[in-house]
Amino acid sequence: MALPETSKYSQGSVFNGVNPDLASERQTASFSVEKLTAWLDGGAEHTRIRRAVVEAIESDPVFSRENQYFQSQNERYEAAVRKAVHLQIKMREMGWTENGPESKYIYRALSGDFAFLLHRVFMRSIVVLGSDKQIAKWIPLATQYRVIGSYAQTELGHGTYLQGLETTAVFDITTQEFILNTPTISAMKWWPGDMGRSATHTVVFAQLYIHGKCYGVHPFIVQIRSLQDHSLCPGITAGDIGPKMSFEHTDNGYLMLQKVHVPRENMLNKFCEVQPDGTYVTRGTEKINYFPMTTVRISIISDEVIIPLMKACTIAIRYSVVRRQSKLNPGEQEAKILDYQTQQEKLLPQLAAAYAFHFINNYLQEQLDRGYKEVQRKNFDTLPELHACSSGFKAMVTQYCTSAVEVCLRACGGHGYSLLSGLPSLYTKILASCIYEGENTILLLQTARFLIKCFMAASAGQPIPPSVTYLAAVKPGKCPAKSKLDFLNPDIYIEAYQHTAVRLISSTAAKLQDIIQSGVKKYDAWNQCTVQLVQAAKAHCHYISVENFAETVEKLETKPAIQKIMKHLCDLFALHGIFSNAGLFLHDGYLSGAQMDMVTASYLDLLAVIRKDAVPLVDAFDFTDKSLNSALGSYDGQAYQRLYEWAQKSPTNKQISPAYEKYLKPLLHNTLSKL
Amino acid sequence: MALPETSKYSQGSVFNGVNPDLASERQTASFSVEKLTAWLDGGAEHTRIRRAVVEAIESDPVFSRENQYFQSQNERYEAAVRKAVHLQIKMREMGWTENGPESKYIYRALSGDFAFLLHRVFMRSIVVLGSDKQIAKWIPLATQYRVIGSYAQTELGHGTYLQGLETTAVFDITTQEFILNTPTISAMKWWPGDMGRSATHTVVFAQLYIHGKCYGVHPFIVQIRSLQDHSLCPGITAGDIGPKMSFEHTDNGYLMLQKVHVPRENMLNKFCEVQPDGTYVTRGTEKINYFPMTTVRISIISDEVIIPLMKACTIAIRYSVVRRQSKLNPGEQEAKILDYQTQQEKLLPQLAAAYAFHFINNYLQEQLDRGYKEVQRKNFDTLPELHACSSGFKAMVTQYCTSAVEVCLRACGGHGYSLLSGLPSLYTKILASCIYEGENTILLLQTARFLIKCFMAASAGQPIPPSVTYLAAVKPGKCPAKSKLDFLNPDIYIEAYQHTAVRLISSTAAKLQDIIQSGVKKYDAWNQCTVQLVQAAKAHCHYISVENFAETVEKLETKPAIQKIMKHLCDLFALHGIFSNAGLFLHDGYLSGAQMDMVTASYLDLLAVIRKDAVPLVDAFDFTDKSLNSALGSYDGQAYQRLYEWAQKSPTNKQISPAYEKYLKPLLHNTLSKL
Repeated sequence: MALPETSKYSQGSVFNGVNPDLASERQTASFSVEKLTAWLDGGAEHTRIRRAVVEAIESDPVFSRENQYFQSQNERYEAAVRKAVHLQIKMREMGWTENGPESKYIYRALSGDFAFLLHRVFMRSIVVLGSDKQIAKWIPLATQYRVIGSYAQTELGHGTYLQGLETTAVFDITTQEFILNTPTISAMKWWPGDMGRSATHTVVFAQLYIHGKCYGVHPFIVQIRSLQDHSLCPGITAGDIGPKMSFEHTDNGYLMLQKVHVPRENMLNKFCEVQPDGTYVTRGTEKINYFPMTTVRISIISDEVIIPLMKACTIAIRYSVVRRQSKLNPGEQEAKILDYQTQQEKLLPQLAAAYAFHFINNYLQEQLDRGYKEVQRKNFDTLPELHACSSGFKAMVTQYCTSAVEVCLRACGGHGYSLLSGLPSLYTKILASCIYEGENTILLLQTARFLIKCFMAASAGQPIPPSVTYLAAVKPGKCPAKSKLDFLNPDIYIEAYQHTAVRLISSTAAKLQDIIQSGVKKYDAWNQCTVQLVQAAKAHCHYISVENFAETVEKLETKPAIQKIMKHLCDLFALHGIFSNAGLFLHDGYLSGAQMDMVTASYLDLLAVIRKDAVPLVDAFDFTDKSLNSALGSYDGQAYQRLYEWAQKSPTNKQISPAYEKYLKPLLHNTLSKL
Repeated sequence: MALPETSKYSQGSVFNGVNPDLASERQTASFSVEKLTAWLDGGAEHTRIRRAVVEAIESDPVFSRENQYFQSQNERYEAAVRKAVHLQIKMREMGWTENGPESKYIYRALSGDFAFLLHRVFMRSIVVLGSDKQIAKWIPLATQYRVIGSYAQTELGHGTYLQGLETTAVFDITTQEFILNTPTISAMKWWPGDMGRSATHTVVFAQLYIHGKCYGVHPFIVQIRSLQDHSLCPGITAGDIGPKMSFEHTDNGYLMLQKVHVPRENMLNKFCEVQPDGTYVTRGTEKINYFPMTTVRISIISDEVIIPLMKACTIAIRYSVVRRQSKLNPGEQEAKILDYQTQQEKLLPQLAAAYAFHFINNYLQEQLDRGYKEVQRKNFDTLPELHACSSGFKAMVTQYCTSAVEVCLRACGGHGYSLLSGLPSLYTKILASCIYEGENTILLLQTARFLIKCFMAASAGQPIPPSVTYLAAVKPGKCPAKSKLDFLNPDIYIEAYQHTAVRLISSTAAKLQDIIQSGVKKYDAWNQCTVQLVQAAKAHCHYISVENFAETVEKLETKPAIQKIMKHLCDLFALHGIFSNAGLFLHDGYLSGAQMDMVTASYLDLLAVIRKDAVPLVDAFDFTDKSLNSALGSYDGQAYQRLYEWAQKSPTNKQISPAYEKYLKPLLHNTLSKL
């Protein structure tokens, strides 16, 4: 490429179509990208609607993310509020509704970079936990933004352990009010989004006291800011918790309550209520309080976790066919870095994981829909399985995808480290998903508790929930594979995963029993097994993911080209997992060392196969350049020019830094002593 | 803890001494923290000097990092320049010199947050690559900051593959000048620190052409900005590359050269020279051009990698005894989170790694000192081993420590994600170390190439360098351990690591031979083995780290209390590695599944043992609160109060956001349509 005149660099674009190194990758796709996109969307009609939403949003300058990488926390917040408010206008203009088919694509198109996300959680908690009367009062107000809501659960001193929350709500029978209070610094609400600067109301979780007796944690609607002038209400101290690794646009807040009075009707009371005389009445189970968290957990998997990984794969894989570095063979042109086995081994397993988790998300949505129907009918029997399942997958998928995005970032070398690549902001944001809505280790231990319980029940011949019936059919034995090709048979690898999960669960259950029988207290014994329990829970989720992927592939028989490439990805996902966790499969000899060599051989072979379709496989995710917001990953592959163009927009290039006159000049001119 | 009056929150500190939960941890140390600190520093006298430097720096308000988390890229840059300039004054004032004993502690005390780091690399390249005459000319100018230097090697299109650099330097015999040129966009220099806004000069690496013949990459001193007014010199285009994941304070820059004339004397010519008639003369080896990178690689391990990990461990471990969450036993007080096995398993292996790598750093410094002496004597024989060693350890240590810092961050839950914890900035900065000064995968493959070569030589009975002699003594066999206690014997685990490294190197060498013998070209065959070659190189470095740790412990016999706890950490480092890479040790049956269970049991036992000394072990790193700059990790353990105090200083709390009047008010008051 010849160097254009310098003057051209600084004006608009000098890009001439698609970089041939990227274009050539699209010539040889083994399947129709458009058909794969439609299938991933759940049908061509969904694709059409999604693209219409994306087009409407991205053509509107208010929603532009062009300057995002150059903005301060204050600027990001202001832009996010502006976008959220403008979205109301836009929705009216476009005829979109909250429950319409466009709804889920709006969020995706905005890349989450707008305010009032917690307002939606506020509304969801009222819908799930509120009485019909409460719903009738608050939901219209919230829908029309007469109030802006938040969700104040986490405290400075308590996150995962809800029973330990310290905020109190004392029922005052004389005034028919609850008096909410923050008794210690550590009881301050801390982190709730939209609370630091925006919300007028919030759902506060507090320990309910009636006549001096504690009834545990309950949700209360509390007004925190004036609807007239937005000033803080009496007894309220609130503000922003300051800078975070990401989410600069969100005003995560703190909240202190000093004897704040709230009417009796403001306790969300679908499932339990305090009557005027102080009688505490419960309808259903308090476990239902956790139900909104279950639904939130599942909803974030798609929006906050899988989409970012798909974007990261798109950026890293496109860049890896545009970047040429070093020579595979002397005398040849420098090679595309995706032609190096090590680069394939970094990126392609992450691509396979993105697909695997897209399918797991479908699986979880189905489970949730079924569970929600039961809860509506006041049948809470499916809650433990749903809770265990959503907890384990939330932990496994967020952990896996966070590592995967980091791999993508690092795989782009120095340019991946530039904010302009789009990868750092994907990473710093997805990392939070490992922490919020339940810290991952705690969640995995909840899954493990469920698994151990089910395993014991199965051993005693009792019935167990559908997702864990494999625990009842423990078969010792060895893997029957005899060649590397055998490991491309899903039955072979599914069985290996199943065997490993059962082994880890049963051996940990046995260790737990042994320790307890040796006289150690049950809780201490549990603590001594937690490292292995976490391993067991992960193995269970990994097994379900592999099996679900294989089942998805099987159902594709009417789309042979797509089925073929999906089968490769499924194999890669499964074999990568075995290769990366070899110890778990070798431990009891289920796989031999020789078989592990076959796994490795098949795994490495697959990399070279999938590499050919790598670009079409990310193109099928169908992200626009604006939504990727990446100088490296755009559709045309003009990475270097774009990096240079974007860098020039940086505020660091907008003016001569005062540092020269103040510090550099005196230093260079040796007049420092005069400073 | 009772809630102080609200008014008190917003004024100064309300801290009352050390949090008792942290204080109690210090009562039971099994060793003298002060003695351990002195030993880590290399003697009490070093500790004294270090503390004096830290005290002098931290008591000077110019060096304050108090507002660091709230500053923009422009503000960070200006502060960094101010600090670097002020440092010159400070050094004069304190009588510190560049080569004095204080020198290495100054950098540590400033936490790297000052400008002109590349100025030091600029000087080092002149010292190593320049003739005596060039050194005599440039070093005094640079020392007195009559010029500010940078080091321009990396280009937009080329990082690791130096031979592929595109910048050209054509010798013009008539004017006795080199004409430097940037022939393509991808040839633009990109990333060099201090270059975007500060430097007046830089060492440019360019392809040397004489009479149309290319002589490969050579270093040239090029002036880029006027010494009078700092304007760009003719033919120079330069600027800042914009926002990055960290290093906001550094003006990483871009540089385009359009027919820039440079006098013949500006090619650094200690090892090769262009004579006036265009004759190219070489003295020594061109490999020496890579020597500065080797020294930089080793120097960053200490400053940029191990210190940040030590800080992250300090913050996370102190916080983990202050944070109480959930109950181990019902009816008891909530437990310190460090009492949970899973939390121990997150943090204590990282602590052990910090110690392991501190000792590896000593090992590398010794190797480097020996190598440098040889190079000074024009003996380049040790360069291949030194290069392989520095490459492998740079990759292994940066990768390990980056993951470790991330573990520390996540282990602090939501509060770890706040910038105020100090952990995000440690993470985003250390992550860069995996990329700069050689991308890690490339570096590991260079180590692997050396290992394969040595293995072949050893197999052929030829002599091999000292660090790899173990490759000549391949002993097949099984691990002799019979109980979990046997795995606390360093001979047992060192042998296991050695066996595994040899197995991976030899099996990959065999695979490589097989592929080549099957008719595949050598370079393609190499590419097909790279995933396993990387594994082999890592295993080699891991083995050396374990052995070096064990040898360090052995030499501690005169300090029994310190020796005892260091032995525990060495065991933990070794067993954690086996537990986490179980597949590598089980693969050929060197360890059986039953032995792996013993490893696991010993490993988990060690966690509970080391947990008791966890706080004293991080206290011994001797970081001041100012150097940690963490609301979570301060010496007094008042994490919650400090988070609240610091949050209030955030610019997000400094003013009413214009977002209210502009967007929220019209929304809430339903006057949006009037907008």
